[in-house]
Amino acid sequence: MSINDWIERGGTPAAPGSGRLRPLGLREVTLRPGFWQQRQETNRSASLAHIEHWLEKSGWLGNFDAAVAGRLPGDRRGREFADTEVYKLLEAMAWEFGRTRDPVLDRRYRALVSRVAAAQEADGYLNTNFGRPGQAPRYSDLEWGHELYSFGHLVQAGVARARTCGDDELVRVAVRAADHVCAVFGPDGIASVCGHPEIEPALVELFRVTGERRYLDQAKLFVQRRGHQVLADIEFGRSYFQDDIPVRDADVLRGHAVRATYLASGAVDLAVETGDTELLAAVTGQWRATVARRTYLTGGMGSRHQDEAFGEDFALPPDRAYSETCAAIGSVMLSWRLLLAHGDAEYADLIERTLFNVIATAPADDGKGFFYTNTLHQRVPGSEPEPDVLVPRAASSLRAPWFAVSCCPTNLARTFASLAAYVATSDDDGLQLHQYTAAGLGTTLPDGRRIGLEVETVYPRDGRIAVRVTESPDTAWPLSLRVPPWAAGATLDGRPVTPGWARLHRVFAVGDVVVLELPVQPRLTVPDPRIDAVRGCVAVERGPVVLCAESVDLPAGVSLDALFLPGGTALKDDDGTVVVTGRPVGPPDAGWPYGAAAGAPGPDVDIPLKPYHRWGRRGPSTMRVWLPVTDS
Amino acid sequence: MSINDWIERGGTPAAPGSGRLRPLGLREVTLRPGFWQQRQETNRSASLAHIEHWLEKSGWLGNFDAAVAGRLPGDRRGREFADTEVYKLLEAMAWEFGRTRDPVLDRRYRALVSRVAAAQEADGYLNTNFGRPGQAPRYSDLEWGHELYSFGHLVQAGVARARTCGDDELVRVAVRAADHVCAVFGPDGIASVCGHPEIEPALVELFRVTGERRYLDQAKLFVQRRGHQVLADIEFGRSYFQDDIPVRDADVLRGHAVRATYLASGAVDLAVETGDTELLAAVTGQWRATVARRTYLTGGMGSRHQDEAFGEDFALPPDRAYSETCAAIGSVMLSWRLLLAHGDAEYADLIERTLFNVIATAPADDGKGFFYTNTLHQRVPGSEPEPDVLVPRAASSLRAPWFAVSCCPTNLARTFASLAAYVATSDDDGLQLHQYTAAGLGTTLPDGRRIGLEVETVYPRDGRIAVRVTESPDTAWPLSLRVPPWAAGATLDGRPVTPGWARLHRVFAVGDVVVLELPVQPRLTVPDPRIDAVRGCVAVERGPVVLCAESVDLPAGVSLDALFLPGGTALKDDDGTVVVTGRPVGPPDAGWPYGAAAGAPGPDVDIPLKPYHRWGRRGPSTMRVWLPVTDS
Repeated sequence: MSINDWIERGGTPAAPGSGRLRPLGLREVTLRPGFWQQRQETNRSASLAHIEHWLEKSGWLGNFDAAVAGRLPGDRRGREFADTEVYKLLEAMAWEFGRTRDPVLDRRYRALVSRVAAAQEADGYLNTNFGRPGQAPRYSDLEWGHELYSFGHLVQAGVARARTCGDDELVRVAVRAADHVCAVFGPDGIASVCGHPEIEPALVELFRVTGERRYLDQAKLFVQRRGHQVLADIEFGRSYFQDDIPVRDADVLRGHAVRATYLASGAVDLAVETGDTELLAAVTGQWRATVARRTYLTGGMGSRHQDEAFGEDFALPPDRAYSETCAAIGSVMLSWRLLLAHGDAEYADLIERTLFNVIATAPADDGKGFFYTNTLHQRVPGSEPEPDVLVPRAASSLRAPWFAVSCCPTNLARTFASLAAYVATSDDDGLQLHQYTAAGLGTTLPDGRRIGLEVETVYPRDGRIAVRVTESPDTAWPLSLRVPPWAAGATLDGRPVTPGWARLHRVFAVGDVVVLELPVQPRLTVPDPRIDAVRGCVAVERGPVVLCAESVDLPAGVSLDALFLPGGTALKDDDGTVVVTGRPVGPPDAGWPYGAAAGAPGPDVDIPLKPYHRWGRRGPSTMRVWLPVTDS
Repeated sequence: MSINDWIERGGTPAAPGSGRLRPLGLREVTLRPGFWQQRQETNRSASLAHIEHWLEKSGWLGNFDAAVAGRLPGDRRGREFADTEVYKLLEAMAWEFGRTRDPVLDRRYRALVSRVAAAQEADGYLNTNFGRPGQAPRYSDLEWGHELYSFGHLVQAGVARARTCGDDELVRVAVRAADHVCAVFGPDGIASVCGHPEIEPALVELFRVTGERRYLDQAKLFVQRRGHQVLADIEFGRSYFQDDIPVRDADVLRGHAVRATYLASGAVDLAVETGDTELLAAVTGQWRATVARRTYLTGGMGSRHQDEAFGEDFALPPDRAYSETCAAIGSVMLSWRLLLAHGDAEYADLIERTLFNVIATAPADDGKGFFYTNTLHQRVPGSEPEPDVLVPRAASSLRAPWFAVSCCPTNLARTFASLAAYVATSDDDGLQLHQYTAAGLGTTLPDGRRIGLEVETVYPRDGRIAVRVTESPDTAWPLSLRVPPWAAGATLDGRPVTPGWARLHRVFAVGDVVVLELPVQPRLTVPDPRIDAVRGCVAVERGPVVLCAESVDLPAGVSLDALFLPGGTALKDDDGTVVVTGRPVGPPDAGWPYGAAAGAPGPDVDIPLKPYHRWGRRGPSTMRVWLPVTDS
């Protein structure tokens, strides 16, 4: 598809040149009021300004002005990667503008871009933290400096603008930056990589926008070099930045979860554009192993606080689950690319799980607070962060307005702005629905036929999804609807369908309505017995939504962590809320907590279970996703 | 007791001026060949030289020479606290010399001391990392600089030398350093504390040695100041260095586990010397809460890798258990002080558990390798560290010769050198036996009566402890023997005794033998149901020794992490090795590890269980202390 086609369609965040499925543009899918539209609207109307406010307040935007005015390094503020938060905001604004064409937003965007652009040096280099007198030299710290990571986000922002608007000051800045990277890190340049992957998918995306082969070649070099110990060893080991094993030789994602998912995304982009089926198969296998052994029930990835990393197989503690918001976004990026490449529903299954249980969990209802980590078990009630204070990154107790490392707010912003992209795809002759949300869709197939659909649903509250045809050719075409793996008993127009793709291939008339019914009654979920940390526990899910118990819903004086579900417990329905019976287990008499007999249980209490993504919104509380079961 | 009395008795590592029990000197208790003597001998004959070698090789000893030669900061090596490893080696050597009077050791010791002493500045300040041109100014980073921590270890080394040898160059260096600390941090000085407690117990101990009240007053100031947010906030929160809550107001140990136990030890020292019963009661309550809710089965403390800290109540994951060796030593220091103050057996119970299951676990058999952390579950076989390479501190897979942060080897060295101190105590008229090991004891009670005992046992291999009287007055005196809480069915001279103190108050004749029989048959131990991470598991203990399963003892192809004990499993005895039945549980069919049915179990296999302290000594392996139980 040409860049002009993309501009007309409103752009899209990953546009492979080949693959089983093709993404739609952000103007081809309009979210209607409902679960996701509400979040996208909050992002547009509140989060973008909130983020811009904090970028000014923290001085991270001012770093660019300080660079121009020669006030660096004295006036430099924030961590080494602070520039990237500005770039991610610009990316979010670009997608948002592609969708809304809001001139006020466009003016804000252009004002920010001019400040960024002014700081670019003559040779294309742009980073407020390196290279000036008194600063470390350029590329003197590839392990931790984040310079190429920073260029990656700059290029991604430029790609977003190019796909939604065409040529532009930021696009030119991004191209100059990418040319600089190719010059310095090319075949005869520095034979290394960045400690934080991101430049890899960015360069492939820029190749897709510009058609310039050198960006693809450079991405290929970066992917090939990594894994050969080109970076120095660090306390966390080289697996932290995936420099332990070459991408095509690894069998599972490992190390820092954001780094791992970004790198894997770039590797898929590269494999698709170069026809490297071996590389694509390698990453696909890594995805599958990671989903089977290193992923939380919520879809969250990365269990370790120390290095924000994947744990070993089946090491998935619910308390102190790191499950970084950005890692969930990286997981969606990766699953989306694999979905486009392979066309299998399982990738969309994980995207759905991750959207409803991590990405919907992270932001506050007002769009001005965020979880950085998304624990599955909160043992001690958190405290409200002070409104004007930077919060340590791992503070997961209550959503905070901003962090000393504030990657998650801006990452959410660009994700919500481009969220419509994940709803549906097309292929040569039909349309596929992946995510169910009220939406209007209209697209032109490659053969020129127009298709329009209106999706009417209050999913996931209810499992009925009605798809009304608003535009259709008078020839047959296939409509495919994803049936999630938990949806046993699902029907399409009354006929049973099984998980995977439910497909209708026929002539559709305007006004036709297709109805998918997904059973969303609550269900008990048991974990693989090898997941030690949740042995003897069950979780409750309802459709794609993981439920949890929260202390604010319990009687005063009842501790959530002392409640066990009696064996054979049933799920009750209390006016739409799922309720289970909890039995307070008496603590042992002795102080030493090993070997003493348990005391007598207390009286049973009802435990209301509510969506995990709603937790922590009613003040400090404790919370559990996994509920222990007792035999007594 | 006067310093000359202590010198004659061989010194002791904590000598309170009051309390229920009095420590014996290191020349009053001689370990005989057996479990602990072997480890003390390995420490003497191998570890001390190994440590000295690494201190030279790493340049941490050379830092003192560089200071004298004006080659700092250019030639500075190691972390900010590297000086303290030299001091802890000197402390270990001092205790060892007190016991052995080995002139060769004494010469090595004096050679090291002269290098340290030469670097002390005119005003008593001594630190190779601060205060010179090009270095950070003195006390410019109290949060992380470790300057007072460093002085604390210097003073502790001086105290050890004073108690075993009297006046000495190192004692004078320590006194000058302590005087400097009092001058700079006194009532009119810097009103703050060190980010790492250690100066507190050191100053009280120096007061005990010198009788100089100003050291006690300064320790009191440090204990009083902490907890009032006198240090800057950090990413881990101020609880990391216990600056969140004043010592006397806290109800549990929290934050960095070594910092917490060192501070609590100093607070007990202070409370005992000042008659501050409120402070003593506060720390006693903290100890009790910590033992009941934040301590591993092994006695290990501190569950978090990120900040080497205590987790929240009942957050005790066996995998990624941090359980730092130094925290176990801090726990022994604290429990020992509370034992001397209160006289209750429970403190000696925890010391025994910690000695057999952490402190005996950490060193390699040859005394030249060490665990920094002591996990209770190793999921992936570790790799042998390269002999000449510094190892990251949290590498717990196999014992390493030295670490970038190498506090544990030197801490073990001073502990093994002074280990005899923990065996027994006296009070006004009798003797108490706390730890059972082959040993000869001889002491003079305050009223001048002489008592001599020979303890004959191969404990913990066997539970028979024979105490033969070798010297006794012809008047009655009480002999108290600790009966551990797990020893149901114990007998003393054939009569049943219950956990706590078994006491014989009578006239003893030389040649009399008292026999304590502690049943050490293996037993199943269930955890408190609130410890989520080991729910549905049992451990096996034998006497004071925690057992574990190790992959090297399993048939090839059997994964330790897939084995479950069938319900109602029995402990079998296979020629002295405890064996349980393990049933490989088939993994679920589906990739997604939640909600799928388990596959068919494999054939039962025998799982030999061996002492946890022996694990990791036969090459890379996986290991579990907690074994999951299945109902099927």
